[in-house]
Amino acid sequence: MSELSPTERTKVKRVPHKAATDTAALYDLLDQSLVAHVGIVEGGQPFVLPLVAARVGDQLLLHGSSVSRLMKTIASGAPICVTLTILDGLVLARSAFESSMNYRSAMILGSARALEGSEKLEAFLHLTEKLFPERSKELRLTTEQETKATLMVSMPLNEASVKISSKFPADPVEEYSLPMWAGVLPIKHTYGEPIPDPNLIPGIPIPDYISRWPEGRT
Amino acid sequence: MSELSPTERTKVKRVPHKAATDTAALYDLLDQSLVAHVGIVEGGQPFVLPLVAARVGDQLLLHGSSVSRLMKTIASGAPICVTLTILDGLVLARSAFESSMNYRSAMILGSARALEGSEKLEAFLHLTEKLFPERSKELRLTTEQETKATLMVSMPLNEASVKISSKFPADPVEEYSLPMWAGVLPIKHTYGEPIPDPNLIPGIPIPDYISRWPEGRT
Repeated sequence: MSELSPTERTKVKRVPHKAATDTAALYDLLDQSLVAHVGIVEGGQPFVLPLVAARVGDQLLLHGSSVSRLMKTIASGAPICVTLTILDGLVLARSAFESSMNYRSAMILGSARALEGSEKLEAFLHLTEKLFPERSKELRLTTEQETKATLMVSMPLNEASVKISSKFPADPVEEYSLPMWAGVLPIKHTYGEPIPDPNLIPGIPIPDYISRWPEGRT
Repeated sequence: MSELSPTERTKVKRVPHKAATDTAALYDLLDQSLVAHVGIVEGGQPFVLPLVAARVGDQLLLHGSSVSRLMKTIASGAPICVTLTILDGLVLARSAFESSMNYRSAMILGSARALEGSEKLEAFLHLTEKLFPERSKELRLTTEQETKATLMVSMPLNEASVKISSKFPADPVEEYSLPMWAGVLPIKHTYGEPIPDPNLIPGIPIPDYISRWPEGRT
């Protein structure tokens, strides 16, 4: 499996043992993430937008409304930072200082490119299939007007860092004897029962494919 | 309940019906969020950091390592953007275009102020109590060295916008008759079974208070 090449900007400096440098860790995280937080700059002010994200090969797809000012900035090729975080648990240590969280997080730097024509149409299909696996084939097709109403951008994944914290409390050994419980409280991201649209026509069952959608996405 | 005052920068322009302008909606979201995505600018490049966040009154507390370059930028009072998002479900519409997500998201603009002295110590207590309710009283106290190792900042919550999407598919009426299931697949954030630290001394039960921690935090 190939390695990510950390640049000066993406090198994880503070806690290097948390850094995962292989592309597999990055792709795994992206494939479990539904939402990315995208940072952009306008007039010196940072803005952070939550956007739906989907990986296709070595690219990340992001999309949003064509009339959104911030989305236009992203599509213009301005420098952006895309951060994705999945929280896996609370680490209950014996001191406040060592108490922490288990998480997986990726930070991707670069710039995006607006997709047009057949590339854009393909990206829509990929995005739909990634978010709603097996559902695309029954959906009503996207119209030309809908395609125009959406900006779809693609961003390379070559400048990225991944941090994974998956641990028990890191208390000093002499504190093990403190008379309190310590450990990890996992946080789980699951699906509830599907809720039918009030306008659903009668007799249509919940599709099988939903039961095959990967758990833990968020 | 008081209203947030949207400024030109935080006014939700694109889908105004999604905007919640009351402070209660903002506080509810902050109180369920464990992680914030904080945007800063360095040399024209945006960076987005995942940080633990806790609301105390009308302020948001953020903290991180004293040696983190990006954390120092935050503590310097530079302009920042703090975005928090909780994903509540997948909206399965009858077209790819109308398929979407239910979520709650807040964007807060402003700058943070580094806390020192007694303010900093109090902030640590508030943060611990918020993240791990009822646990603070049994934790080993924070040392002076640990306090120095952490930057704690506070940010006002007066320039903020909240977007809440909680809906069924918004398909055009003429598409209700398409023969496919439509509805919402809820996404739930729950706790798993607590996992004891391998170094836990024998005979210490899982504390009662964990069962009282609010569900749905992420």
